[in-house]
Amino acid sequence: MFKRFLALFLLACSATVWAQVKVVYHLSDGIPQASRAMANIRNHLNAEPGVKIVVVTHGAGIDFLLDGARTPSDQPFAGAVSELAGRGVEFRVCNNTLTSRNISPDKLLMESKVVPSGVAEVARLQAKEGFVYLRP
Amino acid sequence: MFKRFLALFLLACSATVWAQVKVVYHLSDGIPQASRAMANIRNHLNAEPGVKIVVVTHGAGIDFLLDGARTPSDQPFAGAVSELAGRGVEFRVCNNTLTSRNISPDKLLMESKVVPSGVAEVARLQAKEGFVYLRP
Amino acid sequence: MFKRFLALFLLACSATVWAQVKVVYHLSDGIPQASRAMANIRNHLNAEPGVKIVVVTHGAGIDFLLDGARTPSDQPFAGAVSELAGRGVEFRVCNNTLTSRNISPDKLLMESKVVPSGVAEVARLQAKEGFVYLRP
Repeated sequence: MFKRFLALFLLACSATVWAQVKVVYHLSDGIPQASRAMANIRNHLNAEPGVKIVVVTHGAGIDFLLDGARTPSDQPFAGAVSELAGRGVEFRVCNNTLTSRNISPDKLLMESKVVPSGVAEVARLQAKEGFVYLRP
Repeated sequence: MFKRFLALFLLACSATVWAQVKVVYHLSDGIPQASRAMANIRNHLNAEPGVKIVVVTHGAGIDFLLDGARTPSDQPFAGAVSELAGRGVEFRVCNNTLTSRNISPDKLLMESKVVPSGVAEVARLQAKEGFVYLRP
Repeated sequence: MFKRFLALFLLACSATVWAQVKVVYHLSDGIPQASRAMANIRNHLNAEPGVKIVVVTHGAGIDFLLDGARTPSDQPFAGAVSELAGRGVEFRVCNNTLTSRNISPDKLLMESKVVPSGVAEVARLQAKEGFVYLRP
């Protein structure tokens, strides 16, 4: 009986040790931050191929996900976003931002998914889904 | 016996799922960041009315809590702070900052509460009280 | 039997309450952020002497750890880094940054330790070693 309990207890503990690392990248600062984030995420995936990364954007943080957005070195963001999405990265956009900035969801790159609130999503992923936080 | 244990174990697990989301907003960058934070927090509360939000400020992050502070669009911050406090948001100010900047606690909006160290408070809320982190 | 289980369960719970607070300071913004961080960390250690602090740097965040780096008030960073290292603070530097910026590890202050990826280290400390996050 006690052994059975102990096994379950150790299983619960080791779950933390073996569980997939899940990271929310929080972007709200605009194109330069987004550009750094693309490089950071590429390095992150190379260093730890099993990591799950969700990028949550609001405010000026959504700009790189708009059609035609270009990096500081004048490359389209679409290529990097598509490449990272192909490696399992998800991109979420705050609907409050779309509304307050009067931007149609049609203007977003197709890899984007709209969520009701960016900040609530950043908190929810941490509190309910075991994500850790990183602000590039 | 085992069932009793299992029940307690599942209870512990579900505690994570059902527990109130608690978020520390970390402000240390000055008026523009504080202004964005007021809008972020309003959206956060609207998206998730049950969320507990504590704003911890130090360095230039305390400026919006000083008497007479005004937003970039020249509105008094006092109104937004009072409104959010009425919705359960708490505002904490670093005493190290008050000392090093030689600011009397009398100068703070009445919704503010002084804590010994802003950074220690940001860490403590996460490590000891189950808060997640968000930097606007 | 049940008492034994309950004791173990309460032990696990209280582990959270009594465990050492561990904090990762995430630096990627350059000299002004690093300068603020040195003051923040000094205040943090004074407020809570038992806290474990690891500083993880990448991008422009590594600059203050380069030989000869000086603060905005033109003091050498080496003194503050050495003082904080003496109080148990660790300094980690992203190898991807060294490679992409073509900087030899020889140029780093001796208190620095190179890690493969700064962002992966920030996530790993949180997900696997119970650290909480703070971005100065």
